[in-house]
Amino acid sequence: MTQSQRSPCPIACTLDLIGDRWTLLVIRDMMFFGKQRFEEFLESPEGISTNILTNRLKSLEQMGLIEKQPYSNHPRRMNYQLTEQGKSLRPVLKSMIAWGLQYIPDTEVPDSE
Amino acid sequence: MTQSQRSPCPIACTLDLIGDRWTLLVIRDMMFFGKQRFEEFLESPEGISTNILTNRLKSLEQMGLIEKQPYSNHPRRMNYQLTEQGKSLRPVLKSMIAWGLQYIPDTEVPDSE
Repeated sequence: MTQSQRSPCPIACTLDLIGDRWTLLVIRDMMFFGKQRFEEFLESPEGISTNILTNRLKSLEQMGLIEKQPYSNHPRRMNYQLTEQGKSLRPVLKSMIAWGLQYIPDTEVPDSE
Repeated sequence: MTQSQRSPCPIACTLDLIGDRWTLLVIRDMMFFGKQRFEEFLESPEGISTNILTNRLKSLEQMGLIEKQPYSNHPRRMNYQLTEQGKSLRPVLKSMIAWGLQYIPDTEVPDSE
């Protein structure tokens, strides 16, 4: 158990990384909608704010779940992509999709998902 | 899409309900450790505070994920149990256990899990 962990429980440790209302939506946008750019994440229907998005992209990179690469240098612009560890969250997202569709009224998956 | 939902996305809606660092730990304690009483949840290694626990138990009940019953009237004490909808979160927790064990160092599942 490292110092920042609340316990050795894999659920607790996973929640320490992704247990908030926004982080997995950024992962979702990359995984199912192929989004890579800051402006693309802002366009998602939940209306993430620029400061939350900036914060989550930085956290996700520090956790090793995404990596960024410049796609333009003048002006400098970044592309964000899932690492293998980030891609491996697919079963977690899939289980939430299944649960949400079954138990939360008026949920639906867009065609592109 | 109901008024309180950010979008019809089942992931976003699921996160609206359980997207925080504590809610799924209370579910975990009920599902895998058979905990039912307020004091039992307080004993978990993550050290949930009484005010967060009170808040989450109330929210979980309002969402229909748990239900409470009195097990004593003098003094009045409550038992908390998962509903069918709450129990159906098992695949979500299982996917987090698998992901945490594989990708987060120093995580482990207690014997009773």
